[in-house]
Order: sequence, then C-alpha cells, then structure tokens
Amino acid sequence: MLVSAPGKIILFGEHSVVYGRGAIASAIDLRTYTEGKLLKEKIIKIHANDLKIPGLSISFSEEEIVLGTDYGKAGFVVSYVKSAIEKIFTEYGSRKGFEISIKSEIPVGAGLGSSAAVVVPTLKLLSELLEMNLSNEEIAVMGKNVEIEVQGSSSGIDPAVSALGGGLYFKKGKIERFSAPNLPLIVGYTGEKGSTKILLEKVKALKEEYPEILENIMDAMEDIASKSKKILSENGDIKELGTLMNINNGLLEAIGVSTKELSELVFASRISGALGAKITGAGGGGCMYALAPNKQREVETAIKIAGGIPIRTKTTDEGVRVEHK
Amino acid sequence: MLVSAPGKIILFGEHSVVYGRGAIASAIDLRTYTEGKLLKEKIIKIHANDLKIPGLSISFSEEEIVLGTDYGKAGFVVSYVKSAIEKIFTEYGSRKGFEISIKSEIPVGAGLGSSAAVVVPTLKLLSELLEMNLSNEEIAVMGKNVEIEVQGSSSGIDPAVSALGGGLYFKKGKIERFSAPNLPLIVGYTGEKGSTKILLEKVKALKEEYPEILENIMDAMEDIASKSKKILSENGDIKELGTLMNINNGLLEAIGVSTKELSELVFASRISGALGAKITGAGGGGCMYALAPNKQREVETAIKIAGGIPIRTKTTDEGVRVEHK
Repeated sequence: MLVSAPGKIILFGEHSVVYGRGAIASAIDLRTYTEGKLLKEKIIKIHANDLKIPGLSISFSEEEIVLGTDYGKAGFVVSYVKSAIEKIFTEYGSRKGFEISIKSEIPVGAGLGSSAAVVVPTLKLLSELLEMNLSNEEIAVMGKNVEIEVQGSSSGIDPAVSALGGGLYFKKGKIERFSAPNLPLIVGYTGEKGSTKILLEKVKALKEEYPEILENIMDAMEDIASKSKKILSENGDIKELGTLMNINNGLLEAIGVSTKELSELVFASRISGALGAKITGAGGGGCMYALAPNKQREVETAIKIAGGIPIRTKTTDEGVRVEHK
Repeated sequence: MLVSAPGKIILFGEHSVVYGRGAIASAIDLRTYTEGKLLKEKIIKIHANDLKIPGLSISFSEEEIVLGTDYGKAGFVVSYVKSAIEKIFTEYGSRKGFEISIKSEIPVGAGLGSSAAVVVPTLKLLSELLEMNLSNEEIAVMGKNVEIEVQGSSSGIDPAVSALGGGLYFKKGKIERFSAPNLPLIVGYTGEKGSTKILLEKVKALKEEYPEILENIMDAMEDIASKSKKILSENGDIKELGTLMNINNGLLEAIGVSTKELSELVFASRISGALGAKITGAGGGGCMYALAPNKQREVETAIKIAGGIPIRTKTTDEGVRVEHK
C-alpha cells in the first residue's frame, strides 16, 4: 500500500500566532510517500533512503520499540516515525510486524513540515493496513501528539495541514480549513537553519522590552493574515496578496528575525518580477517564498544567483491520501 | 566674513511624520561654509566650486536677480541661494552688491540637508554683513520660506536643524530642540537618489488601501521616535537606540521604501558590529545610517564592500555660526 501526505508552508502570521493572532498555513504539492505491508515476523523494517538513512532496522520487544541505530539528523526523523508507530499500536492494542519505505520530496529542516509529512502518512498507512480506518482529523490529532512526544510541544499546525490539506487559518488554538489550491510559489531556501527556539525567545524578549511597539506590529500582522485569508479563500486578487506579503516581510524584519541571506533572496525575487516575497517560518535562516505567477523561471534564477536554493511548488487541497492499495 | 552651518540627518520618524507622528532630526558635523564681503559695485558674485559650478556670476537689476547661467543640478542649488538673497534684500529694503563663496562638506542629493545648509549660512552671512542681526530662529523661518519658494513646500525641518543645531523633535508642526551631541554615525550612501515625491505618494496609496495596517505601523514608528528622543536627550543607553533603529528599519521596509541596495548596506553594517542600522530619509535609494561607536572602521569597510559610500559623521549641537568676521 502506498500513502502520501503533503508538506506545508506558513504563508502569514509566523510569530504573531504565538501572541494570539491569526496565522495561515497551506499544504504544498511536495509530498512524502510511505509504502508498506504487514509482515508475519515480529519485526519492523524502516527504509528511508532519501532521508540519508542507508537502510535502518528497528527491533521491538513486547515492551517497547528499540531504535537499532541513530544516524544524527536522519535519526531525528526516525524518532518521529518511531513515536507514530507507538501511537498506532497503543490505539490498536497490540504490535504487528511490518515493513515501511519512506520517500520524501520535502527538504528536511527548511520549515516545510517534513517531519509531520513523514508522521501523517505513516499513521495513515498503519491505520489502513490494520484496518483501523482512522479519519484524517483523528490522524491530525494523533500527529500532534507525536510532535508533543518528540519535540516537547506542538501547535498542531504541521500535522493538521499534512492530514487535511488546503489552507488552514489558525487563531488561539482554533483551526479553520479553506480551499486555496494552485497558488504558484517559489520557496527560496538559504541553506541555513534558524533555531526556532532562539528566535521565539528573541521576539519574546523584544516584546517584553517594547510591549506597545510589538503590540502594534502584531496587530498589523493580524490584519494582514485576516485580509490574506479572505483573498485566498475567495480567489481574490493575488497582486494584493503580494503587497501584503511585502508588508509582512518588513514587519518580520522589524522584530529581528530576518537575516542578510533571507533579505537578499527577498529582494532578488522582487526585482525579478515577484508580486511579493516574504520570510516563511521562524526566520533567522530557513526559507522565504515568492509569489510570481508569470515569472517563475526568472525568480528561480534570481534566487539561485543570490545564493539560495529555489524550490518550485504550489498550494494544494490534497491532504493525506492512499495512492494505491 | 566666514559663516558655517551643519547638515542634518533624520534619525527617526520619516514618513510617519507626514501622518502626525513625531520625528527626530539632528545636526551633523558636516558643514557648509559661506564666505563673503560687500562690494561697492552693484553685482553679486557667487563662487561655488565644490558644488561643481565652475564659477558663476549673477547680475541683478532693481527689479529682480537674474541667474546668468544654469548648470543643471548645481544650478538647482543656486536657485536656493538666489531665493535666500531675495528674501534678505526684501527684509533689508534694498539691494547691495556682494561676493559669496560656498564650500560644502555635505554630499548633494543624499538627504543630508545640503540645500538648507547652503541657504542658512547664506542668510546668516548677509544678515551679519548688512548688520541686520537676525536671530537663528528668524533665519530658520526665513530658510523655510526659501524652501517653500523653491520646492513648493517645506516641513521647515532642514533649515531649523541647520540654523539651530542639536536634536529636533518634530510633531504636528511643533519643534522641540534638545541637546544630543557626539553620537557617532556612519552614513551609507547608495549612490542612487530616490524620489521623495514618488515615495510619499506610494506610502499614501498604501495607507489608503490598508488604513488599519498602516496606522499600526505609524503608531509603532511614533513610539520608537518618542522613546528614542528620551534616550538621546537624557544621554541614555545607545544600545537600546540601536535596537529601536533596527525595528524602525523593518517598519520602513514594510511600507515599501527600502531597496535591495539599502537593505544590503543595513545588513552589512549590522554584521560588522553596528548596534543598529536604518534607512534615513524617504528611502527608495539615498542613505542609511549605522550606529557603531566601537566599530566605525569595520562598518565603513563593510559599507564600501557592499557597494555604498560611507560617510563618517557625528551629531552636533552647533547650528549656524560666524567662524570669523
């Protein structure tokens, strides 16, 4: 059986969402594929070649699943898979042997939800193989619990996007899904990874020092997210969406989460014809994205010249799905 | 007689000042010098070699002063001088022959108040030569009228700074002077000139489209200007001033007045040790400035490498003054 689930991009509201404002994420057409079958032997085999794991076996006793090896960063991804398997078996009531192969189109560590996009189709695959028939909403919640177990906390955004697909508007723990497919995006990866933890702390410290200034900035971000949701869900003017992206990017620079590299990719995109360009995610490295419906090639080239890695993608309504039995 | 007057830098509040928020400008230690004497002949000779005018004679009748020639951009500066002379003679009641030499340390067209810094010492020089003894406050007002005549409008900021020196806090037409000398700055000139008119129109259009977002941004700018005034006038923590500069720069980027080149100089300055870096003036080109008390050389070099022209300066309390009789 082959199952796939999409990665996600945060379009608006990073950082401000921490302070009760709305944020928008969307599923993108880069997907992670999990293929697998049940085994008669009580063994779990995980193959994840393109996650830079040269082939990995995990043994398990009745007590717990034991990771036979840890390949650093890739091993970190495997800890998500391990937790996902545990969650399913707990729900199912017993353990089964099975084999799973993971292939991903989503770069790891770029803020595109690569972890959730492994967890979600793993959960779905096992749910189908074990005939548990969990709904995508149940898988989203289970995915959030996996993240909490592995990371210590989770907003639930990534597994929700990966499971449900489409655009999601988040505010104060509430999620509203809307359809917003086929928005053509170029993601520009700086090749560096910012520490989300450090960036969140930096913004928090700035907010404690200058509460009024930061409140005004967060309110502006909120208004941008709310207007953008309307444009996205009502198929509105994407030129306006670009303008809102540009404003939001300045606000993210104001709160100190931009870098020289991010700023270079943003300006390179704008100069080469993007309607808008903005940091996505926590910043301090990571990715920006550009909205450039008629200048995809130009923006990709400009991002490359500016030292970034362009990733062409588009938003999608397709969440986790069974590709074939 | 030799008279000099300082250029100015806008430290905070560009654009938001247009919408009733506070702005801060300061005199800087780059000055324009006017040297002159009365002549017996009824002729006015203006020498302004370093304004790229190879020597210019202006004749005048009893009716009006006639510019004998126009050397493009430099001729534009001369139109300020001409208007200043007219204003003085109107006040004085008759015309006198005189000779004036203008030398300036202030780059033209970089938003450092080069025009006002020519007008103000010209007014002062004539006031002294004709024994009119105008106060610096009167000269500031007369300088504003010169700007209104030549440009069509004037905030009065540049002539006020040039005449009075020190830091000036502007809000809704009111000016408050405070002492804030010796703040070490590196101005980074992009070599391009943004059109203030176009930029003001761009921000106006954005504000009309997104009033709530822009109001929040303007309010944040207001708060930054107000906090910065306190720090500057009370000799507070300049590290904090740097942080406020960085926030304000992001807000200027948000309203669309930054450029690739400005952003590059800003990040180059920060990376090389500046406490803060921000656009000064209308943006769209022009200058940024960096606050880097212990890294002056490093920031100058970084700005050069990033393709800008560094100008080392500091704030000063010295307004227009007679250097010698």
